Amino acid sequence: MELKQYAKTVAKNARQASIELATATGDQKLNWLKRCAAELVARADEIVAANAKDLTAAEEKGLSSAMIDRLRLTPERLQNLADAVVEIGQLPDPVGEIFESCKRPNGLLVTKVRVPLGVVFFIYESRPNVTVDAAALCVKSGNAVILRGGSEAFHSNTVLYSVLKDCLKAEGLPENAVQLVETTDRAAVGEFLAKGDLIDVTIPRGGKSLIERVAREATMPVIKHFDGICHVYIDASADQAMATDITVNSKCQRPGVCNAAETLLIHKDAAARFWPALAAELQSKGVELRCCSESAKGIKDAKAATDEDYGTEYLELILSVKIVDSIEEAAGHIRQFGSGHTESIVTNSLQAAEYFQNQVDSSAVIVNASTRFNDGGEFGLGAEIGISTDRFHARGPCGLREIMSYKYVVHGTGQIRN
Amino acid sequence: MELKQYAKTVAKNARQASIELATATGDQKLNWLKRCAAELVARADEIVAANAKDLTAAEEKGLSSAMIDRLRLTPERLQNLADAVVEIGQLPDPVGEIFESCKRPNGLLVTKVRVPLGVVFFIYESRPNVTVDAAALCVKSGNAVILRGGSEAFHSNTVLYSVLKDCLKAEGLPENAVQLVETTDRAAVGEFLAKGDLIDVTIPRGGKSLIERVAREATMPVIKHFDGICHVYIDASADQAMATDITVNSKCQRPGVCNAAETLLIHKDAAARFWPALAAELQSKGVELRCCSESAKGIKDAKAATDEDYGTEYLELILSVKIVDSIEEAAGHIRQFGSGHTESIVTNSLQAAEYFQNQVDSSAVIVNASTRFNDGGEFGLGAEIGISTDRFHARGPCGLREIMSYKYVVHGTGQIRN
Repeated sequence: MELKQYAKTVAKNARQASIELATATGDQKLNWLKRCAAELVARADEIVAANAKDLTAAEEKGLSSAMIDRLRLTPERLQNLADAVVEIGQLPDPVGEIFESCKRPNGLLVTKVRVPLGVVFFIYESRPNVTVDAAALCVKSGNAVILRGGSEAFHSNTVLYSVLKDCLKAEGLPENAVQLVETTDRAAVGEFLAKGDLIDVTIPRGGKSLIERVAREATMPVIKHFDGICHVYIDASADQAMATDITVNSKCQRPGVCNAAETLLIHKDAAARFWPALAAELQSKGVELRCCSESAKGIKDAKAATDEDYGTEYLELILSVKIVDSIEEAAGHIRQFGSGHTESIVTNSLQAAEYFQNQVDSSAVIVNASTRFNDGGEFGLGAEIGISTDRFHARGPCGLREIMSYKYVVHGTGQIRN
Repeated sequence: MELKQYAKTVAKNARQASIELATATGDQKLNWLKRCAAELVARADEIVAANAKDLTAAEEKGLSSAMIDRLRLTPERLQNLADAVVEIGQLPDPVGEIFESCKRPNGLLVTKVRVPLGVVFFIYESRPNVTVDAAALCVKSGNAVILRGGSEAFHSNTVLYSVLKDCLKAEGLPENAVQLVETTDRAAVGEFLAKGDLIDVTIPRGGKSLIERVAREATMPVIKHFDGICHVYIDASADQAMATDITVNSKCQRPGVCNAAETLLIHKDAAARFWPALAAELQSKGVELRCCSESAKGIKDAKAATDEDYGTEYLELILSVKIVDSIEEAAGHIRQFGSGHTESIVTNSLQAAEYFQNQVDSSAVIVNASTRFNDGGEFGLGAEIGISTDRFHARGPCGLREIMSYKYVVHGTGQIRN
């Protein structure tokens, strides 16, 4: 009951702040972000000290060294974070932007104007810098945000939050524009998910079980971010060097992220030309190959791929491989096993490129470039709060516009309807 | 269990049809719509005969004459419906439209391409012509649709559906692109609402209790259409003739629809100039006035307005009235009592117009024109499947684009990520 009341109070405060924030000027928001950037650097000692508590707890809990590294804040990382915040501040103010208009025959000027969604509930399990990034994106887009970070970053998030809040106060913006859920009790999440009357959207970023729980319990819309089972398809006509670069980059450049490739589909003609060489190149980068019977032939150390492999997001240096007879078979495989995240084709055939981009239904379909480009920064959105695997409202990378709505503003000169 | 199986089969068929439909050409869809239009006219006798069964049942059930008239199909109404269908056909094909693009510094061309949502479940209680309109909009936008009409129009809908389906077959389009739920069992709706894995969006159009049920039970996103408690605000500087025309039109031109005005707010300076004359004009049109204590003064037959009145969507010739001291008070009243649907301001002050359009958060904010213009046709969307009171995905009138998603299509020349 106490938790219920807490969630209600926080959500109500966010709703009120969102009303005030919706009409804040671009300058106010920019000044806030500049001040946050300066304070992140000025208060680096305090932040690093709080972060040390999280790091100690993480070591005691026996988290992996990779996870501990993700958690770590250093003066250098805080400077990078400060730079990112200023970059978000310098993006054009999206609130009030007219992005479509039409003049009607009766003289009415009909415009579509971008407005904030209102209140965003953001749940994340990631690095503490996400706390600052998410707050920056939400406030810049005129949304109040309720932040629910992972328990492993609790001390770091708490001090970062105090920086954000102090700066809101100093710039005369509503203090409750950014709120942090100040308990690690998992039941608190459920209480916020029940507040569909006060919260406009929930964005969960984390493991599959978290996202499934949120989708099940939420009484408001959710922007989900599920698996990335991403494919590279090498077409018959593909250039060997380009195909090799793109496959290696898609798999190896950062294997633990959602837009890394998990499966390679290769046309039999291309396979005949250079699959053994490509396999050797992948293996030299430490990639374990799980192959169909055709692609396993003559490849040393190739393991056999099962259907389960083709449906797995490895997030490590493992690649499923299948040789296909046609581009139609490749598209069919992607429809059956893919997650609609990111697929790349490597080809020199215009017809093949057009077939692939029309038939493959994923948030990003990429011709002759790495799957790793499906990213808000790389697509020119400035920054992202996540990558949506939903089709509704927002798909793919979510920057400022994707956490916004619109209204029609219509200008007349006394028109009435007949 | 039988109903569960039925819903699953229909939804699966729709999903399969949506995959085929997503790559249909604009010509195929136009030819289908032209053929539908011709068949609606050619098969008018058959349609009118089926409609007669619904009309007889409606009379036996004692439906109001207004409702019976809405249900009625005549050769003339079928001709109008045929014309509307051709008009939808002639809109540009929205599937594959590139609506944003950006060239990145590394040479990648990032484009946002409009794609169908997939499968639409459309629940409606309205006139049988909605069956045809909705199917036309969904197929034109590349979506398969499952239609659930009202039981009172069951025979009419069934024959209209056979026209739509015969024409799909004749044009070589997937027959299951349009399916009608062939039972009036209310439990069927629940079975479809449980099919979140096969249906991409549910659009309910009807009474509040229907929409609330759908929002509660749906396992997929819903585009809701709730109350229209619409306001006309007459600012201090408003022109008397324009204010009178807009108020009368907003209230009286079609009082039973969601974008008709329910409340008049009038600045005390404007009230002092012409409220008694405006009140007399409204009363001469048969409007019952429910007034605040200030606006009741000197108005014959004025009833007292309660807070409940200000929160009521009358949908008939009744108008709540309140005199306000300032535009801020008007905006505050709208925030407290409005439903975020449509609000108009009548003013000659640029400052007042800007304040109103910035502060009032409704799907349409209209300066110097009637609230009745918040409509897909009037806004140039071609036609509409409903008016959304949601902020998520689609807000205001929903035409073709509002029942669509997008994907990123990216063209490179071998780029990899560093």
